[in-house]
Amino acid sequence: MATYKAIIAYDGTDFEGFQRLGPGRRTVQGVLEQALAKLGWQGTSILAAGRTDAGVHARGQVVSFDLEWKHGIEVLGVALNAHLPGDVSVRRVTLAGPGFHPRFSARWRCYRYSLLSAPVRDPLAERYAWRVWPAPDLAPMQAAATMALGEHDFGAFGAAPITGGHTRRQVRLARWMGEREGAAFEIEANAFLHRMVRRIVAVMVEVGRGDLAASQVGWLIEHPDRSWAGKAAPARGLCLEAVVYDEEASL
Amino acid sequence: MATYKAIIAYDGTDFEGFQRLGPGRRTVQGVLEQALAKLGWQGTSILAAGRTDAGVHARGQVVSFDLEWKHGIEVLGVALNAHLPGDVSVRRVTLAGPGFHPRFSARWRCYRYSLLSAPVRDPLAERYAWRVWPAPDLAPMQAAATMALGEHDFGAFGAAPITGGHTRRQVRLARWMGEREGAAFEIEANAFLHRMVRRIVAVMVEVGRGDLAASQVGWLIEHPDRSWAGKAAPARGLCLEAVVYDEEASL
Repeated sequence: MATYKAIIAYDGTDFEGFQRLGPGRRTVQGVLEQALAKLGWQGTSILAAGRTDAGVHARGQVVSFDLEWKHGIEVLGVALNAHLPGDVSVRRVTLAGPGFHPRFSARWRCYRYSLLSAPVRDPLAERYAWRVWPAPDLAPMQAAATMALGEHDFGAFGAAPITGGHTRRQVRLARWMGEREGAAFEIEANAFLHRMVRRIVAVMVEVGRGDLAASQVGWLIEHPDRSWAGKAAPARGLCLEAVVYDEEASL
Repeated sequence: MATYKAIIAYDGTDFEGFQRLGPGRRTVQGVLEQALAKLGWQGTSILAAGRTDAGVHARGQVVSFDLEWKHGIEVLGVALNAHLPGDVSVRRVTLAGPGFHPRFSARWRCYRYSLLSAPVRDPLAERYAWRVWPAPDLAPMQAAATMALGEHDFGAFGAAPITGGHTRRQVRLARWMGEREGAAFEIEANAFLHRMVRRIVAVMVEVGRGDLAASQVGWLIEHPDRSWAGKAAPARGLCLEAVVYDEEASL
């Protein structure tokens, strides 16, 4: 029996989120555990770096599981992929180091949010992006993003995961990039509050539309006003790109 | 009653192709005609530039239809989109000129085929691309593409659309472009034989894998050997990008 770490990608569109929900509910954890069971896995639950919401995608979700596997590790990913549906894949399998936990050992989480700027619906792009038209102005959005850098109390953008837990998070990267038909927001932090990225994106788009000043985002970051009921940007635009662990120098 | 021309985009994944097939079969033509019927359309069939196969996508399919529409033309597209599912959209509606026919008036058709070069499955990219690994070598593929330029008999790559019809087609653009994680093939011709683009792509990928010489593609173009049973590349990678008419100078 060994513990394995696997990097997972999925198209979240047709899933009710990552976390297993029980019979008849299609979740990423559910299909991963079904595939593992075909290889003899008898655990009760795999571990994961983060529980992405319904509709959120991933290129770099990380899971771990114990398995008795008599063949080479290089064919474990191939065997798992053979049992997974087309919208989930195992990208890499390695042996987990001693004491490794996908969530508690994680040092940084990297998310990407995609905006599409187009006047009409685009069926080929909107599966993975939020369409915003007219195109928001990226300059004040970038100014707002810069204010998120460093350690702040993000309580205005999400509740603490456990009662009494704090809402301070450390952001080491937050930037907007113009793309061919829209823009992408990249953010890396030590951890995120529930829906924090989507709430930050929603506020920044208001800034880009001229409905809110960039300085007001700065104010929200300094004043974690929990009564401020921020909308969240749609799940379809969000992707968990990577989870970084101590043993890795960087992305 | 006026005749309208509309540019249509769709994600072909969940359709049995463009052409209407009857009750219980989900086709692009079917959902377009259902949306038009909601606006009072009473025709028997819309006209289209091309009948894309099951799974093929489009950003620039062109259709025409007659409609009694009392509101402004600028809201016709909005009204149609309100009745269309998320995987089809009307991108632009204009009045069709006298005698306009989406298929017979078309001067050039532009297709794009996307390859993904990745060692493992990628659920976020493979909806719109064919995964080929190891990555094929683009240089001989580009050499083969150049041989397709001009007027040739493409009989080796598809049958004539009508009995006794010829298989000569005029290609004005054929090129491979390297992309971040793969490559894209762009081809423009006055018309295409059934599955011609996907068969050309399949042969070129064999060239890029070293299984076929670029000169053999040239030979096939000059010798329309109908007994040569070429495979077609998967539909998922193909997209009808645009249809060009005489009234338009270019793309």
